[in-house]
Amino acid sequence: MSDEKRKTYKPVPISGFPEWLPEIRLVEQGWMDHIRRVFESYGFCSIETPSVEALDVLRAKGEVDKEIYVLERLHRDEDDDSEARLALHFDQTVPLARYTAQHFNDLVFPFKRYQMQRVWRGERPQLGREREFYQCDIDVIGVDHLPLHFDAEMPAVIYEALEGLDIGRVQIKVSNRKILTGLCGALGIADPVPVTRMIDKMDKIGADGVREGLSALGLSSAQNDSLMALAQIKTRDPETLKARIESLSLQGDDVITEGVAELAFVLEQLRHLPDHAVTADLSIVRGLDYYTGTVYETRLLDIPAFTSSVCSGGRYDDLAGSYINKHLPGVGISIGLTRLFAVLEHHGHIKAGRKSPADMLVVLPAEERRAAAAETARALRARGYKVELYHAPQKLKKQLAYAEKKGIPYIWFPPFEDGQGHEVKYMTTGAQITADPETWTPES
Amino acid sequence: MSDEKRKTYKPVPISGFPEWLPEIRLVEQGWMDHIRRVFESYGFCSIETPSVEALDVLRAKGEVDKEIYVLERLHRDEDDDSEARLALHFDQTVPLARYTAQHFNDLVFPFKRYQMQRVWRGERPQLGREREFYQCDIDVIGVDHLPLHFDAEMPAVIYEALEGLDIGRVQIKVSNRKILTGLCGALGIADPVPVTRMIDKMDKIGADGVREGLSALGLSSAQNDSLMALAQIKTRDPETLKARIESLSLQGDDVITEGVAELAFVLEQLRHLPDHAVTADLSIVRGLDYYTGTVYETRLLDIPAFTSSVCSGGRYDDLAGSYINKHLPGVGISIGLTRLFAVLEHHGHIKAGRKSPADMLVVLPAEERRAAAAETARALRARGYKVELYHAPQKLKKQLAYAEKKGIPYIWFPPFEDGQGHEVKYMTTGAQITADPETWTPES
Repeated sequence: MSDEKRKTYKPVPISGFPEWLPEIRLVEQGWMDHIRRVFESYGFCSIETPSVEALDVLRAKGEVDKEIYVLERLHRDEDDDSEARLALHFDQTVPLARYTAQHFNDLVFPFKRYQMQRVWRGERPQLGREREFYQCDIDVIGVDHLPLHFDAEMPAVIYEALEGLDIGRVQIKVSNRKILTGLCGALGIADPVPVTRMIDKMDKIGADGVREGLSALGLSSAQNDSLMALAQIKTRDPETLKARIESLSLQGDDVITEGVAELAFVLEQLRHLPDHAVTADLSIVRGLDYYTGTVYETRLLDIPAFTSSVCSGGRYDDLAGSYINKHLPGVGISIGLTRLFAVLEHHGHIKAGRKSPADMLVVLPAEERRAAAAETARALRARGYKVELYHAPQKLKKQLAYAEKKGIPYIWFPPFEDGQGHEVKYMTTGAQITADPETWTPES
Repeated sequence: MSDEKRKTYKPVPISGFPEWLPEIRLVEQGWMDHIRRVFESYGFCSIETPSVEALDVLRAKGEVDKEIYVLERLHRDEDDDSEARLALHFDQTVPLARYTAQHFNDLVFPFKRYQMQRVWRGERPQLGREREFYQCDIDVIGVDHLPLHFDAEMPAVIYEALEGLDIGRVQIKVSNRKILTGLCGALGIADPVPVTRMIDKMDKIGADGVREGLSALGLSSAQNDSLMALAQIKTRDPETLKARIESLSLQGDDVITEGVAELAFVLEQLRHLPDHAVTADLSIVRGLDYYTGTVYETRLLDIPAFTSSVCSGGRYDDLAGSYINKHLPGVGISIGLTRLFAVLEHHGHIKAGRKSPADMLVVLPAEERRAAAAETARALRARGYKVELYHAPQKLKKQLAYAEKKGIPYIWFPPFEDGQGHEVKYMTTGAQITADPETWTPES
């Protein structure tokens, strides 16, 4: 063996592909469990799609601006040409569209699904912009029509999901693209896309920057004033929203009226959330061109290190037109889990968990007590505890040191001799009491 | 929109990359939750590694016989050559070795980890041999030394994990490679590898086939007799095992003696399992050359459709010698989850779950009752129920039909008018009773 024992390749981290130590992974897992629990509590079902799609599927809507990874088999054989070219998915929306089209007849609509998988983008890696990362998505898909109910459900779900992660106060900003699009129409702006893109920069470059940018696009100062007045509206009260829009004297436009009514409905349904949790913010437009109504962004109010949107999404008119001849409107939102987690971890906001999930270490007093100690461990496991049985009859000090290094909070001492009882030691306080494996609880 | 509405690409399933409808996914998810719960109940911690490794890491031990997928960026830029070539991992053992080497100083040993991720192999796809599949692995890694305790823990964990999946009786077959290797040595067989490979075929070609195969390898009939006598030993009783080995008059060999003692120890620790659950089977050797002691295979006794091993593994001398100058012995076992699940699903052994995780649909009686109905849904969610609020004030019949199609078992009727009470309908029995959202339980 010694000949082979030389180190042949020293592994180094791969930029953009994060991995965590067990004590950090435990926290990530806790996040994912919590998010899943919230998603399911609103009736979203889980789906998973393959990590790959046919390249033709990914490009069915035209060239993709994301950096796509394609797969090549290292040892290809002659019949490879007959196979479709496969690529790793870069989001979960295209796979959802393909899945919904492919399984259309087997799904019940409105189709409420969540999806928590890794996605891949070959971008230049940096903190908060990993190449492999988890996204946690919820979407609801209707056939021909999808009630506004779901537009209002999204922020409620997301608030509950994020609020449980111990990341401070979360604020979901909501807008409706119909309002801004309608205003552009009313103002006679032929191509609203560059205008909405500029307004989307409000958070980054400020109101003055946007005003300048709009002028540079050739807008008159009257147009500019109208747009800026709209984009600066922020309120969580639906009546205030309506009043402020009315004060802009734009109410003649049907599209605007529809957008305002939709946005007011969404705000109305979110009255149960805390004051800071939600606000209409008319500067929110989202860069993606396929949103047609409600749009969302999310900010962490107490963690300035995280400046971008934690979680974004919106309403779209037609999910899967590239794959099926059905009109499938939907609304969805996505938590960029790994990106959020990695940034918070980097800035010290993630408090490491334990190095073991075990609640308890059962001590092995001596080789001849092995069967009895194992029996004790099984009894405790049967009661729902996570229990490690120590692996060798070593000195007690060594067994305790192991539990301490792994952060295991309780040490269980099975009888060291026949006729003795059990004891349990609380590592936090050092207290040690007699206990019965069939009845003990941490509160004993 | 109508111009774009034409179907541009009809998606088809990609061979070897399975995906499930929500009602099947629910079962897969239940399996994974159960397996994870069992793994954690024995103190295994979760890790996840990136889906990719540097190709040099995957090949550090020499050429790999698995079909590897390498990644290529669709739009490469000029500096791509500076980046390491990345490939999807084909198992979780190589990533574990790399992880353990890379994070050696931050881990506590014995390091008990579980890992449940997708792996990829570009093999010719067929049922039970997918190209993308989940594996559920547990391994324990020691430094310089790893107690036999863990060799005995593996079958206990795996039995509990598989036994909860509603797949009938499970049998774990255990052997120890030292016994067969020692016998080959005692018989003067210079190269034991082809001999052990032949014996490994016992299940497939039967005792006569193996005997013929051994003769074809040039073994004398005395050698053949000894090997066959050993390979046909099957017992779950450690004393019987020792007696049967002794009756072969091989006890002079140290390696054999050591192997028998180890195997007897493992059997001894598994006395708490049911009779069918475990057996020593000396014909089990596992093809992989790196196993050095205990080896495992697992069979489903009640599902003849699944003929191969559900779950295999064993003890290895040196996990990460290719990456670090440490001696890291380990023992591990892996459930081929997707391969098992896909075969059982194909043969009708998977009973589809519901199309929604929701326990309950809260009816929306009328638009003006929306706030009250939403409040009821929240109250029920706060008590741990998974609750969908119906999305529009449609006819009751339509709302019930939706719940029925999704398989939601309880329908909650909030007050239709002020002053009325709540009612709940049990979809299985049709019974409908008055209920209080703050106190109702399904047993009410």
